[in-house]
Amino acid sequence: MNRGTIYGLGLGPGDPDLMSVRADRLLRTARHVAFFRKAGRAGQARAIVRDMIPEDAVEFPMEYAVTTEIPLADPRYNAMLSAFYTECCDHLRALSEAGEDVVVLCEGDPFFYGSFMHLYSRLRDVVPVEVVPAITGMSAAWTATGQPITWGDDVLSVLMGTLSEADLLRHMQAADALVIMKLGRNLPKVRRALDAAGLTSRAWLVEYAAMPGQTVTPLAEADCDKAPYFSIVIVHGQGRRP
Amino acid sequence: MNRGTIYGLGLGPGDPDLMSVRADRLLRTARHVAFFRKAGRAGQARAIVRDMIPEDAVEFPMEYAVTTEIPLADPRYNAMLSAFYTECCDHLRALSEAGEDVVVLCEGDPFFYGSFMHLYSRLRDVVPVEVVPAITGMSAAWTATGQPITWGDDVLSVLMGTLSEADLLRHMQAADALVIMKLGRNLPKVRRALDAAGLTSRAWLVEYAAMPGQTVTPLAEADCDKAPYFSIVIVHGQGRRP
Repeated sequence: MNRGTIYGLGLGPGDPDLMSVRADRLLRTARHVAFFRKAGRAGQARAIVRDMIPEDAVEFPMEYAVTTEIPLADPRYNAMLSAFYTECCDHLRALSEAGEDVVVLCEGDPFFYGSFMHLYSRLRDVVPVEVVPAITGMSAAWTATGQPITWGDDVLSVLMGTLSEADLLRHMQAADALVIMKLGRNLPKVRRALDAAGLTSRAWLVEYAAMPGQTVTPLAEADCDKAPYFSIVIVHGQGRRP
Repeated sequence: MNRGTIYGLGLGPGDPDLMSVRADRLLRTARHVAFFRKAGRAGQARAIVRDMIPEDAVEFPMEYAVTTEIPLADPRYNAMLSAFYTECCDHLRALSEAGEDVVVLCEGDPFFYGSFMHLYSRLRDVVPVEVVPAITGMSAAWTATGQPITWGDDVLSVLMGTLSEADLLRHMQAADALVIMKLGRNLPKVRRALDAAGLTSRAWLVEYAAMPGQTVTPLAEADCDKAPYFSIVIVHGQGRRP
């Protein structure tokens, strides 16, 4: 029997209208749909496309064993997460070997800071895997600001709010345009680094880009005590323009 | 009469199957389709979607007044380009004021190093303009390599091959993952900077990502004398992974 394909299906930033034509077609004809979620939650990726999943599709929710309960530095964190991904892959491999295609829902672009990569690295040499790229959350965020992110020779750096304040500052000073993600509880630290780099007046906080409730706020006017998970800071480049 | 909307329509990396559902719909129902091209050429953006443009749509090719004939540093370059963009905008504004929607075809994502931004900045306060984000060429390039671009806290920097060799080296040394665009005649310089940064063995040259003729070559094995316009260098991050 031919093995089925595991599709890492990029959903894009959150508006189903911004999914690719290919992702739309693969999802609407899927027989198996897998997605990550926190225990007890509906799952953000599934929520984006809930009206598009065929009624007779078999769903496979993959519930994170740990999220924020154990600190990242604790060796148990990595061990538990690794065991979780291996368990997910066992199930996906069994489906593939039974000849079934599986669509794995991925927020944003699967190869850009995504969880699917951890399945991909375990499955790629074992079963057929295909990745469908997608519009990133950061594209939706800079589009929401109504200003181009980069011009001419601008250097764009993408930074995670989980970096140290010193590392954030160093990278902020080196680049022309910035995208900063993984904010949440890191936003006050990111704000301090932007202040130190003299960039706060050029920074925007975009929440829920391309989703219901989208907001775009000058960072100087934003409440930096806590940003939602779906928030991105944007600093636009100022490069050459005729 | 209501004014029409000018759509900056991101086409994505080049495969029409990777256009967004929204872009696909707007294009297939368009009455006016504008696109950039070099004089005497078909236009890359139009070539991507030639089978999707409605037969009765009115096309508006915008032919670059200068491309590489005049050096970038020559003040006439900026003046000629600026006059060209203004002229294009006069025509688009007239269409909008006559109540017509216009789709402007944009390779990649319109706000990410695109030419549409120069129309956008001239039109945004004058007529209704909407930008439809898209999958970037770099997403297609890293997808083509079959390896995720960023993990964990990796810093991604996007560099233009037009930067000086010293600037390229400095940014290469600071980041974890790299995307380098605008290669062409700059590729030998980019290669020297990657050599100096000790990154050549991790670098990939992707040509025509998500287009017919796509190739993925380890940079160490590539002919660096000249890369086609649609080529991107990728250096993958090596960050945390359970």
